[in-house]
Amino acid sequence: MGDRQPPPAADDFEFCHDLRVRWAEVDPQGIVFNPNYLVYADVAVTEYMRAIGFPYPAGLTASGTDLFVVNASLNYLASARFDDQLSIGVRVDRLGRTSIRFAIGVFRAREPLVSIVLTYVNATLDGGEPAPVPEALVERVLTFEPQPPLRA
Amino acid sequence: MGDRQPPPAADDFEFCHDLRVRWAEVDPQGIVFNPNYLVYADVAVTEYMRAIGFPYPAGLTASGTDLFVVNASLNYLASARFDDQLSIGVRVDRLGRTSIRFAIGVFRAREPLVSIVLTYVNATLDGGEPAPVPEALVERVLTFEPQPPLRA
Amino acid sequence: MGDRQPPPAADDFEFCHDLRVRWAEVDPQGIVFNPNYLVYADVAVTEYMRAIGFPYPAGLTASGTDLFVVNASLNYLASARFDDQLSIGVRVDRLGRTSIRFAIGVFRAREPLVSIVLTYVNATLDGGEPAPVPEALVERVLTFEPQPPLRA
Amino acid sequence: MGDRQPPPAADDFEFCHDLRVRWAEVDPQGIVFNPNYLVYADVAVTEYMRAIGFPYPAGLTASGTDLFVVNASLNYLASARFDDQLSIGVRVDRLGRTSIRFAIGVFRAREPLVSIVLTYVNATLDGGEPAPVPEALVERVLTFEPQPPLRA
Repeated sequence: MGDRQPPPAADDFEFCHDLRVRWAEVDPQGIVFNPNYLVYADVAVTEYMRAIGFPYPAGLTASGTDLFVVNASLNYLASARFDDQLSIGVRVDRLGRTSIRFAIGVFRAREPLVSIVLTYVNATLDGGEPAPVPEALVERVLTFEPQPPLRA
Repeated sequence: MGDRQPPPAADDFEFCHDLRVRWAEVDPQGIVFNPNYLVYADVAVTEYMRAIGFPYPAGLTASGTDLFVVNASLNYLASARFDDQLSIGVRVDRLGRTSIRFAIGVFRAREPLVSIVLTYVNATLDGGEPAPVPEALVERVLTFEPQPPLRA
Repeated sequence: MGDRQPPPAADDFEFCHDLRVRWAEVDPQGIVFNPNYLVYADVAVTEYMRAIGFPYPAGLTASGTDLFVVNASLNYLASARFDDQLSIGVRVDRLGRTSIRFAIGVFRAREPLVSIVLTYVNATLDGGEPAPVPEALVERVLTFEPQPPLRA
Repeated sequence: MGDRQPPPAADDFEFCHDLRVRWAEVDPQGIVFNPNYLVYADVAVTEYMRAIGFPYPAGLTASGTDLFVVNASLNYLASARFDDQLSIGVRVDRLGRTSIRFAIGVFRAREPLVSIVLTYVNATLDGGEPAPVPEALVERVLTFEPQPPLRA
């Protein structure tokens, strides 16, 4: 397990989206079933887009592209339970020419539960060819994030 | 609860689809969470279409329509649990001009667990206007079902 | 389709819970997949319990029982789409000795999308035997609802 | 994206579990929504346990422990679509004292779609303390896998 990163801290995120754990998301162990944290991440990224003022997905599909997840990595540190109030922190930590990477932390109060890194590629809707991340999105991210993302 | 119908019997169905309960579908009570039986029904209806030889959804979307659920009714008689092997019986029990109704029974061995009635309307993909159920589908159903569906 | 009831009206509900449609809940037709309305209903019933001040499920499991869905009936009137803001109205419309029935309406603004009737039985956690709905829950419901539920 | 590994090959797996993509798992882009591959992985690991002859979860919970996912990593190479027949290859590629790591490949025919690495820790059901992987499980894995897992 040498691939563990330090746990995320709530203060690392300019943006957080709150949600409450649903019964549907909890398994017989009494904890949130592990794939559901990727659902939470998706919900929170959508809200991040709204918060920075980029219309999603319309801002992409208008030019014939959309974001597709190419890599997801999750470290599970502690378990959420039914009815827990969670806070999902989202920030962009790397901006490539055709890709955008999000660092995401799932917290219960200030306790980190899951750390997620999600990389999307912007690709054409017809052929799935990588396409440049729209300048409008890049500019919104750079304006919003106090810590500039890596450019790679 | 005067709206209870007699429990379904496995012999009522010419077609059955088998599946095994997934961990993702079980809740903290240790039983399959109630909405998941509608997922099972959807899976089994798809397999029914394959069994009777009607290409779904291609056979509909080619003519610009698709099936939309307009009514679902479920009676829960007993609970399925993780790893249970279930058998989902499907039959068409009513054929309208623009609608098709399925009677569905969920069984563990021969024990009925859930009884479902699902009504679909065939409707245009653009405006959502009801459209006649394709003759090809009607003909396949009538050929397949030993008990002729109500025509209404 | 003679079993259709009049569509619900937002004003019929003293309690509403708002939520936004998630990407995970939308299907290739671009609309919310039909089983997910039962997930919404479950979320909204949980919030209803919180709103009337009945601790759920702790208020039941403490005495060795829990609520189990025995019947669900859904009329689908119109489709919700990704990112729609929905309002889920919940009220108790029948209180039996061991059962409790909820009438639920799913609205987009004031447009009714889905009408749901959900009947739960209170049953013992060990044997699944029906048990009286706790007086504390009955009393909370009667205090909260402007329109007294049927007693049956 | 320097963290990409070579795509998996179907021949790397002694065990494969087949399943068909459900409508419920497909999103408005017409492709399987990314979290669902973790559901597929979970289903396939359960079947792997059955195939090697280890009763799961009974073989663990009997001694008061269960497996908890602590790390998941997914590379998405290509997209599965509705009704696709998928093959999920599973093998154990690392056995620690208290952990077990699975390498998983999702294939459509022989085309690799998603590569997953899942690490579980065996932990006590009460306190969540790491506990040795049962010898019975280790022995079954070592007997089954043609390529011995790393021991670490």
